[in-house]
Amino acid sequence: MSHEPKTYDLIVIGGGPAGLNGVTTACILGKSVALVDRHHELGGAGANTGTVPSKTLRETAVALSGLRSRDLYGVDLSIRREATVSDFLRHERTVKSGLNAMFAQQLDAFHAEVFFGDASFVDPHTVHVRTIPKSQAQDQHKADAARDNGELSIRGENILIATGSSPVRPAMFPYGPGVYDSDTLLDLVNLPRTMAVVGAGTIGSEYACTFAALGTKVYLIDSRDVLMSFLDSEISRALVTEMERNGIVFHWKERAVSCTMNEPAVPGNPGQFTLKLSSGQELTVDEVLVSVGRHSNTESLNLPAVGVRIGGHGLISVDSSFQTNVPHIYAAGDVIGFPALASTSMEQARRAVRHAFGMGVYTGTPQLLPHGIWTIPEIGMVGETEDSLKAKGIAYVAGRASYADNARGRICGDTHGFLKLLFRLPDLELLGAHIMGEQATDVVHIGMMAILAQAGARMFDETCFNLPTLGALYKMAAFDAMLNAERTAGIPAAHVLK
Amino acid sequence: MSHEPKTYDLIVIGGGPAGLNGVTTACILGKSVALVDRHHELGGAGANTGTVPSKTLRETAVALSGLRSRDLYGVDLSIRREATVSDFLRHERTVKSGLNAMFAQQLDAFHAEVFFGDASFVDPHTVHVRTIPKSQAQDQHKADAARDNGELSIRGENILIATGSSPVRPAMFPYGPGVYDSDTLLDLVNLPRTMAVVGAGTIGSEYACTFAALGTKVYLIDSRDVLMSFLDSEISRALVTEMERNGIVFHWKERAVSCTMNEPAVPGNPGQFTLKLSSGQELTVDEVLVSVGRHSNTESLNLPAVGVRIGGHGLISVDSSFQTNVPHIYAAGDVIGFPALASTSMEQARRAVRHAFGMGVYTGTPQLLPHGIWTIPEIGMVGETEDSLKAKGIAYVAGRASYADNARGRICGDTHGFLKLLFRLPDLELLGAHIMGEQATDVVHIGMMAILAQAGARMFDETCFNLPTLGALYKMAAFDAMLNAERTAGIPAAHVLK
Repeated sequence: MSHEPKTYDLIVIGGGPAGLNGVTTACILGKSVALVDRHHELGGAGANTGTVPSKTLRETAVALSGLRSRDLYGVDLSIRREATVSDFLRHERTVKSGLNAMFAQQLDAFHAEVFFGDASFVDPHTVHVRTIPKSQAQDQHKADAARDNGELSIRGENILIATGSSPVRPAMFPYGPGVYDSDTLLDLVNLPRTMAVVGAGTIGSEYACTFAALGTKVYLIDSRDVLMSFLDSEISRALVTEMERNGIVFHWKERAVSCTMNEPAVPGNPGQFTLKLSSGQELTVDEVLVSVGRHSNTESLNLPAVGVRIGGHGLISVDSSFQTNVPHIYAAGDVIGFPALASTSMEQARRAVRHAFGMGVYTGTPQLLPHGIWTIPEIGMVGETEDSLKAKGIAYVAGRASYADNARGRICGDTHGFLKLLFRLPDLELLGAHIMGEQATDVVHIGMMAILAQAGARMFDETCFNLPTLGALYKMAAFDAMLNAERTAGIPAAHVLK
Repeated sequence: MSHEPKTYDLIVIGGGPAGLNGVTTACILGKSVALVDRHHELGGAGANTGTVPSKTLRETAVALSGLRSRDLYGVDLSIRREATVSDFLRHERTVKSGLNAMFAQQLDAFHAEVFFGDASFVDPHTVHVRTIPKSQAQDQHKADAARDNGELSIRGENILIATGSSPVRPAMFPYGPGVYDSDTLLDLVNLPRTMAVVGAGTIGSEYACTFAALGTKVYLIDSRDVLMSFLDSEISRALVTEMERNGIVFHWKERAVSCTMNEPAVPGNPGQFTLKLSSGQELTVDEVLVSVGRHSNTESLNLPAVGVRIGGHGLISVDSSFQTNVPHIYAAGDVIGFPALASTSMEQARRAVRHAFGMGVYTGTPQLLPHGIWTIPEIGMVGETEDSLKAKGIAYVAGRASYADNARGRICGDTHGFLKLLFRLPDLELLGAHIMGEQATDVVHIGMMAILAQAGARMFDETCFNLPTLGALYKMAAFDAMLNAERTAGIPAAHVLK
């Protein structure tokens, strides 16, 4: 530790979606980059505990349980009773390790230096790394990439903090086998017969749907009485109906007040857990998932030493270039808070790094953010909701199209899905697109493109879509909106401007 | 037949995608409409023998054969040996009869009159209908909708011809059990072990892929040496590679010169067929599909009596409003030829009918037509190909993104798929999008929207896509194109206009 620390154009702390994109963006600009990650598994929550694994497990669950196929092929594809949790997670592990390897190759190809360890600031340009010994690495075969054990310091002209967030863990829960947060859930060994999910946010709702599809009886507990209130309220209500149809039991306006482990019926077997709710009701279940929010990972960074300002909930404050109050220190991703999606985190990091090197083309997080929710059925949304339009006093007309009226919807057996488009009156420019149903998270991008291009009902009405596809729902919904605009606002189709 | 024929604002001949859309468009405009269809099953080739059934059977085949799942879930979902052809077709029949019922309900709700029978012109405004007795109806439970047997005449202020097309049936083939065209293929009883497909157009290629996925050894014979030459040539070559990987054997630059049925090995069993090819090679197979083109259904209409002009290949000639040379007689769909897709046929009929009633907003078939090919893997394309850009002398740059580098691609197990985008130099406006891989026929609509809006690389680069989705491939491909534009044409990202 006596020699001068090596200096890089950029140090990135955290190897999740934001951090990795920060590294590759700088490398493409020809800069020298060091990445510090504590996990020995690149990809962060995006690849390892959050976005990708939950979606992968969901795909596996949907396929194995035959939800897509039941009543569909005249052949029983319903859930294999002999399937083990290991079967369900095998594909998840394949995808995860494939992504880990891909990220490692990318960093290698870009000649980025990678340090596996904990980072903390020594001064505004110097980061101290306590490398994590291989023996403590979470995943042995990844540990080969680990540097020699010990301590070192590195120097960065610029530094990007992308350390992400962790689940909030209320102290009342006896975490361990049977009681999980979203980071530890995939450690489960047995497929539970019954499960309580505390918190019906995106993560809680997605896992509730996945486990319900695997045959688990799921109780979903939330302190509110609206499911994901950022959704268009018609979609939110329709999703509740579908989740109930899939066997999920909602406990609205309830909080968990205690969670205790029961004596196992057979000594040596795992015991069940009893949750007491605020209403006094008790639920006894095999397993519990606590999903009540996330907090930024900033504690161990020693930020006070460099004067980086922290806002509410431990979030790092940044400007529209993702610069902190210390100009050469940037932050991106979950660590700066909303919207905390892998997609936005990646884009934020790109913008931060381009700005740091004077190559800034765009600033800010894009205003128009699509949302994808991998519940069963899927949800896709972009732009305004009916509620947000009413709040802004913008006159609008809605157009709807049902999966049941679409040949592709019938082919894939999704008869409850629908697309709702919201157009501004009187010109019928598209302002919002909301979809519940198969492929919704991807199909919503068709609407996003139209909104970005300030296009409207006429563009959909004039064009052809492949048949049979779900994209054709847009044409049908736009036409429905044009009929509604004529009926309710007296605007004939020939007078529609957009 | 002595009383005056009943007069309608519109008579539509043919109940396929074009005809049905013609009917509903007129009904929405408040017009009286009669529909004449010879099939007793509404929906035409789109719902009954072509578009939808082939796609439905494909979905079933892909799901049952476990192509999506093999190596994916750690559980054997591969083809059930005990599955019968009836199993494969059950879902197809469910979708078909669901669509038939939906169309019938729509017509009922709109108070359109439906005559099941053969139509022929008596004079330019009078159509003679020879109704088909119920006993001859293809599907007994649909036959209730049939009118009383016999003959009648109806009169139309306007007439839309939408009688579609039929497979060309070269005389050399002994059609019957074992030798099919695309209209009769779904009558097959046994799943063939070996199959020859004559003609590698869209229909032949799609069925070749479906049967290969069901475990049939497929030989695909074509007189050319390029697969679907309208595709971007890189996509065409990649598709050949994937089809060969799935076991399909191509016989390029070959024609069938004879096809004979062999004596069955066991008396009473079906015999095999021996195809002799132009090179002299012989193929002996269980079943043969002949898919060498389609011709318009105009013979029985008695068009000479009204002077409607017929062009080459029996196609009815129309102008950009789909008007024939007889002003009140329109034609739309397969009967007028290229592109002969369900999507374009529907739109043509809408435009024809709106024009007929002085409500024309748009004319012509939309210039920008997406193509969807339901091979395995799927193909989506829209706009220019590299070859068409070269032919037009337009400078361009390509950007590519691989499914293997996309988390969604990894989740769905598609590692050979890719998206290729073609941008005009120097402004990087998007001119073409080409995709091979899962969901390609839908994902291509994202690119279509961008092309319609005259947007380009910058719009994709600036925005966020849901993750993990296939839509995110656009952002990656656009960025790749921007790097290529800088490298090969010296255009830095900051100077990209679109």
